[in-house]
Amino acid sequence: MSSHHFVREKQEPALIIANGQECSDELLGQLLEWNPYVVVLDNAIYRVMEKGIKPDIWMGDFDTDHDFQSIADRIYPLEIVHTPDQIKTDLEKALDLLVERGYPAANIVWATGRRADHTITNITNLVRHKHQIKTVIFDDYSRIFPLPASFEKWYPAGTPLSLIPVGTVEGIRTEGLKYELAGESLTIGYRTGSSNEAAKDGIVRITVEKGDLLLMECHD
Amino acid sequence: MSSHHFVREKQEPALIIANGQECSDELLGQLLEWNPYVVVLDNAIYRVMEKGIKPDIWMGDFDTDHDFQSIADRIYPLEIVHTPDQIKTDLEKALDLLVERGYPAANIVWATGRRADHTITNITNLVRHKHQIKTVIFDDYSRIFPLPASFEKWYPAGTPLSLIPVGTVEGIRTEGLKYELAGESLTIGYRTGSSNEAAKDGIVRITVEKGDLLLMECHD
Repeated sequence: MSSHHFVREKQEPALIIANGQECSDELLGQLLEWNPYVVVLDNAIYRVMEKGIKPDIWMGDFDTDHDFQSIADRIYPLEIVHTPDQIKTDLEKALDLLVERGYPAANIVWATGRRADHTITNITNLVRHKHQIKTVIFDDYSRIFPLPASFEKWYPAGTPLSLIPVGTVEGIRTEGLKYELAGESLTIGYRTGSSNEAAKDGIVRITVEKGDLLLMECHD
Repeated sequence: MSSHHFVREKQEPALIIANGQECSDELLGQLLEWNPYVVVLDNAIYRVMEKGIKPDIWMGDFDTDHDFQSIADRIYPLEIVHTPDQIKTDLEKALDLLVERGYPAANIVWATGRRADHTITNITNLVRHKHQIKTVIFDDYSRIFPLPASFEKWYPAGTPLSLIPVGTVEGIRTEGLKYELAGESLTIGYRTGSSNEAAKDGIVRITVEKGDLLLMECHD
């Protein structure tokens, strides 16, 4: 079985390249290496082509004019998916498509930075798909993902970890953080768990009774 | 009455320079011109000094070592305010101080970009002070502010306007938007009003019955 065939069996996460601020070529290169099934959103297609990346799918509402034939000639094979729905964002439509096609996970880049409305919407909307597909947003400073009801992971002492509630999150219990939570609630705008950190080298455990909690691993 | 005296009467907004991604010198220059009372947060002091800006207040928890005397010698007079409270962010502490000193408004730069946890916390926490001080976060792509119960402003046709709820916001009514709301609710993570726009040259009106709604004027 070739590694290519392996990929089509969807054992690796897909990679979604959105239309926000570019990350470093180093980060993008690593993601492409490990997530070879690539979905590109809307006008990011031009920046992606400039970098010599060959995506598998190009999705968008295509509000602006494109020379589809010339793009399809340069990237072959390329599946072009027109998604005119204005209620959902391009990123949500891409996640819908990956869910429909059976992908268990997706990594997402270029979804943050620049416009604050796109950044906050892309980050907080991750919670809508959390029961259908595992997602992580990456940028040069951050790794962001929705937490399941029970989460654990090993971190080195001092790793910055921010717990960001999307709405109100109840019954949060942590083990291994500098500022522990013992069943408290967090509410966006009023009480968040930003700028916590791993207390020592070891497992951090976080459980949540109710609500949508994001974990952000960020560094300066 | 000198213009300097005028400023001390607090008729102009104060300017808070936080410790995130820098904006363009053009934007910063304009803000400094119109908001001459300047509060700098934490390690941003070094980047501010490099640009030759002379702030009035320097606030922070000062976790890292600083040569306070040398900084005070370079910027005179400089009020140094040590705020060791770890519950609040530096930006919240700066807003508390400005409220205490009677400032009716504050503009905020360098509060977005880079770390996603700081960005989302700085933006959504604006709602906590909304009844005490008028605030606007500026960056090169965005102008972000909490809406009062009733808001109106003239916009040119097509101006991108995103309505971002911090939690759930009920009873939103709009006039003058491309996608109008007629008493609907918005909920962060589930239903936001991102990427709306002014329908025509004219007044946009937004009223809110309950909850914290941010308006973001963003452009690419």
